[in-house]
Amino acid sequence: MEEQYVVGVDFGTLSGRAVVVRVHDGAELGSAVHPYRHGVVEDRLPRSGRQLPPEWALQVPDDYRDVLRIAVPAAVAAAGVDPAHVIGVATDFTACTMVPTLADGTPLCELDDLRDRPHAYVKLWKHHAAQPHADRINALAAERAESWLPRYGGLISSEWELAKGLELFEEDREVYDRMQRWVEAADWTVWQLCGSYVRNACTAGYKGVLQDGAYPSVEFLEALAPGFGGFVADKLDQPIGQLGDVAGGLTAEAASWTGLPEGIAVAVGNVDAHVTAPAAQAVGPGQMVAIMGTSTCHVMSAEVLREVPGMCGVVDGGIVAGAWGYEAGQSGVGDIFGWFTETSVPPSYVAAAAAAGEDVHQHLTRLAAAQEVGEHGLVALDWHSGNRSVLVDHELSGLVVGLTLATRPEDVYRALLEATAFGTRVIVETFRDSGVPVEELVVAGGLAKNELLMQVYADVTRMPLSVIDSQQGPALGSAIHAAVAAGAYPDVPTAAKSMGKVRRGVYQPDESRALAYDELYAVYLSLHDHFGRATTTMRGLKAIRRRAVARRLDATGGSAS
Amino acid sequence: MEEQYVVGVDFGTLSGRAVVVRVHDGAELGSAVHPYRHGVVEDRLPRSGRQLPPEWALQVPDDYRDVLRIAVPAAVAAAGVDPAHVIGVATDFTACTMVPTLADGTPLCELDDLRDRPHAYVKLWKHHAAQPHADRINALAAERAESWLPRYGGLISSEWELAKGLELFEEDREVYDRMQRWVEAADWTVWQLCGSYVRNACTAGYKGVLQDGAYPSVEFLEALAPGFGGFVADKLDQPIGQLGDVAGGLTAEAASWTGLPEGIAVAVGNVDAHVTAPAAQAVGPGQMVAIMGTSTCHVMSAEVLREVPGMCGVVDGGIVAGAWGYEAGQSGVGDIFGWFTETSVPPSYVAAAAAAGEDVHQHLTRLAAAQEVGEHGLVALDWHSGNRSVLVDHELSGLVVGLTLATRPEDVYRALLEATAFGTRVIVETFRDSGVPVEELVVAGGLAKNELLMQVYADVTRMPLSVIDSQQGPALGSAIHAAVAAGAYPDVPTAAKSMGKVRRGVYQPDESRALAYDELYAVYLSLHDHFGRATTTMRGLKAIRRRAVARRLDATGGSAS
Repeated sequence: MEEQYVVGVDFGTLSGRAVVVRVHDGAELGSAVHPYRHGVVEDRLPRSGRQLPPEWALQVPDDYRDVLRIAVPAAVAAAGVDPAHVIGVATDFTACTMVPTLADGTPLCELDDLRDRPHAYVKLWKHHAAQPHADRINALAAERAESWLPRYGGLISSEWELAKGLELFEEDREVYDRMQRWVEAADWTVWQLCGSYVRNACTAGYKGVLQDGAYPSVEFLEALAPGFGGFVADKLDQPIGQLGDVAGGLTAEAASWTGLPEGIAVAVGNVDAHVTAPAAQAVGPGQMVAIMGTSTCHVMSAEVLREVPGMCGVVDGGIVAGAWGYEAGQSGVGDIFGWFTETSVPPSYVAAAAAAGEDVHQHLTRLAAAQEVGEHGLVALDWHSGNRSVLVDHELSGLVVGLTLATRPEDVYRALLEATAFGTRVIVETFRDSGVPVEELVVAGGLAKNELLMQVYADVTRMPLSVIDSQQGPALGSAIHAAVAAGAYPDVPTAAKSMGKVRRGVYQPDESRALAYDELYAVYLSLHDHFGRATTTMRGLKAIRRRAVARRLDATGGSAS
Repeated sequence: MEEQYVVGVDFGTLSGRAVVVRVHDGAELGSAVHPYRHGVVEDRLPRSGRQLPPEWALQVPDDYRDVLRIAVPAAVAAAGVDPAHVIGVATDFTACTMVPTLADGTPLCELDDLRDRPHAYVKLWKHHAAQPHADRINALAAERAESWLPRYGGLISSEWELAKGLELFEEDREVYDRMQRWVEAADWTVWQLCGSYVRNACTAGYKGVLQDGAYPSVEFLEALAPGFGGFVADKLDQPIGQLGDVAGGLTAEAASWTGLPEGIAVAVGNVDAHVTAPAAQAVGPGQMVAIMGTSTCHVMSAEVLREVPGMCGVVDGGIVAGAWGYEAGQSGVGDIFGWFTETSVPPSYVAAAAAAGEDVHQHLTRLAAAQEVGEHGLVALDWHSGNRSVLVDHELSGLVVGLTLATRPEDVYRALLEATAFGTRVIVETFRDSGVPVEELVVAGGLAKNELLMQVYADVTRMPLSVIDSQQGPALGSAIHAAVAAGAYPDVPTAAKSMGKVRRGVYQPDESRALAYDELYAVYLSLHDHFGRATTTMRGLKAIRRRAVARRLDATGGSAS
């Protein structure tokens, strides 16, 4: 029998990656990466150069098509396979990234008269200008005790469809009125490939607040802003596709872009984090996948529906069809380590790292790895970007305690690694306490290569730690969905068993270290509860800071740094 | 009338400094510094090379004589004055630094058969091996409710005469038995100069626990260790000289060392911190002198006797005769700033500092000075070396809260500067709350040159801040005592008025900044009370650290780093 192949395409923040995967065993045969020409648009609009306000982050949708036109054929060429043997294609995207379009999917920013309108562009996940809108949504939802609020740990994010939609409604009514669809980029890309707009169950649930078949009500939306009541019916509502379903067949135009056979299966869209679970063969209950990069996203399927305090969301079929998909998150992880190496490591260490042929992370990790648990005498709180799960408070901040004149950079570095592990343990224990057991940690993402960090996580959580065995987890996960959509496997879990790749139980908890970590974790928990729950110290510091910055701007007439 | 001169000699940790001062106006005409040949003996004894245990810090007493033999004549030569016009000499010393001697003042380490005995040497102030002995003294004193304990803020230091004496008694009984006097180096130096052993009221009170004319009782000492009951009567007790008194006339031998006239007045000894008060014209009630260097020592005279929680000590005539002298302290100040610049500032900053012709401190200070109060969003606890006043707990440690990914080195640096100012405010307010008013801060020591730091102290404490106008405050203070001992002035306050030097009210509090600091101080206080009083978090971390180090030593058979 002829070998069959699928293509998975992972749309990241700065580039898109296509991977060609063999259907019968998941072998990754070739890949190609294409950076977005406009990257992230944060300062000025392309062409007109129009300046954007702070906290904005836009993208240009044709950059996504370029990935289909350039990276996909390049990956097929790199794989050395006959495109005729490709039976399906699937994509995953950052989320929540939103494209305002006409009814046929044309992005508004591609209309001549709207090219110079910031609100006509794609709003990238990290567009954070809708925080005031999110605050109002949360306040009103809490006041009205909306039933969907606990499904999101009690807080809707400013990144999501509703907050960004309200921002658009209130800030550029003309663009809002001309917008006929408010589309997740995850679905817009699929729409480009197959000509059909199918909303995927994952983003509709996690980012669109679709619960038990319903979005927030007209009454709620109208109470939020008069005239906004039609938002869901007019702009958002659309048939839902389950993950692994086929959204349609590859159009002739998309076939010409990609060089793939017209008519092959195009799977419904997906999110980069969630699609990684099957790539790591972790779609069963108790298997928590941690995608660890600048931040960490935790996804896990379960048979039970529980309201876990501080989770990001629980969605029916949000990770695999037929199971409840849970998501939680840590706002800052790798970016905290990166911030530390950039701002807090002295020249002697940087020179020693260079002399040893190491980068600063490797150097600090090697020094830190020589220590016994607790030897540095420090505990940190990993809240430099706030805390998503389980406190859901972005006014929190980082802390280090136990500093002495003998404290060295590797000590603080190790304390920061450990703090993120303690943060994960808080999440795991909160899931367990809510009746959602966690049995295994499966790590994907760039931080998986740090062996000290992995062992710390195993020891701190007292769980075996498995590591995905692919450098391109999301694209492999998409390929798995393509194979299912094409009918090569009956469902995603079955496909994952053949195509997913994991090194199981690579790191095992060491009981003596785990016991030593229990003591440090008790300190972490006491700090966590003191600063996260009992006091408003950190929130107060943020308020003091904001007033101070305002005073300086008043005094200088200058702009914020 | 012929001009008259005095010589002040300041014995520091690493060197001795002699200064020649004009009696009528305090002009500093010449000075010379002589480093101790053996410096601080921390690893091995001189000659034999015998290894010392951890935490030891010894000195060699003949190094002190070298200062008299070399630095004093060099200073006179540098001043270009006729030695015949020098009318008096006075010294100040680190404390508590102890010399074990025979009845004639001969240091035991100068006896041939004791040269190889560590306990025969001078124990420098920072010899910290007597902590277990201090712990026992404190426990027993608390148990017996000894009346002297509150005079020391509730805790006796391991650095002091009693703890070091008990250590000697228990660890080398033969040396203890042969020791006939247990002498403060401050007094031993005077003994060398004038041939008489007079104990100065300052060290006898602050370091010797002499209160209301009595030392700890025979019963207390005997309960501490059987056989130790005679410690005070046999080794310690001696006539007390008030500060500014004459201890005797310069001996022929000392005249030959120093080149000064035989028979001139030698003042009783003094301590470097306390002797600085008259040098800064700050001997009146409410004038708190802060000697700010690696740590800060606060000294202030008052007419009232009060038990101030957490002070280092209150001694009758401890600073000037006839007034109660109060001492408090911050364990870490400049050494925290130094630690930060050495361990936590990245290459780009070090390079920018060099390019601007600044050292790293200057560079960070300039960047930090551009900020509004509170703009960095941080508060730190300045307990990297523990906390002396007012918590008296060396198991405390440093903390920084409010960290974000936008936090820069100058932010943390400024937060550390402010933390030490908050620490001073806690001390000032504790004095006030105890009925000992503080009206003015007078700063001496190396940190006085940092203008940002000084302004922060003025703003945080809402007090005018004066700065000593001499680079050699202790030696000038000694010279003032020499002039009084020689009869040129009737008392130290009168001499200070003519000879002391201060720039009064150089820094004035700014009310708008003071108000902004009130908010940050409230955060500092809440952290202070939480970590210093309500919880044992920091003590727990130290205990965890000690056990971890012990595990590593067990595992490696190595020595502690």
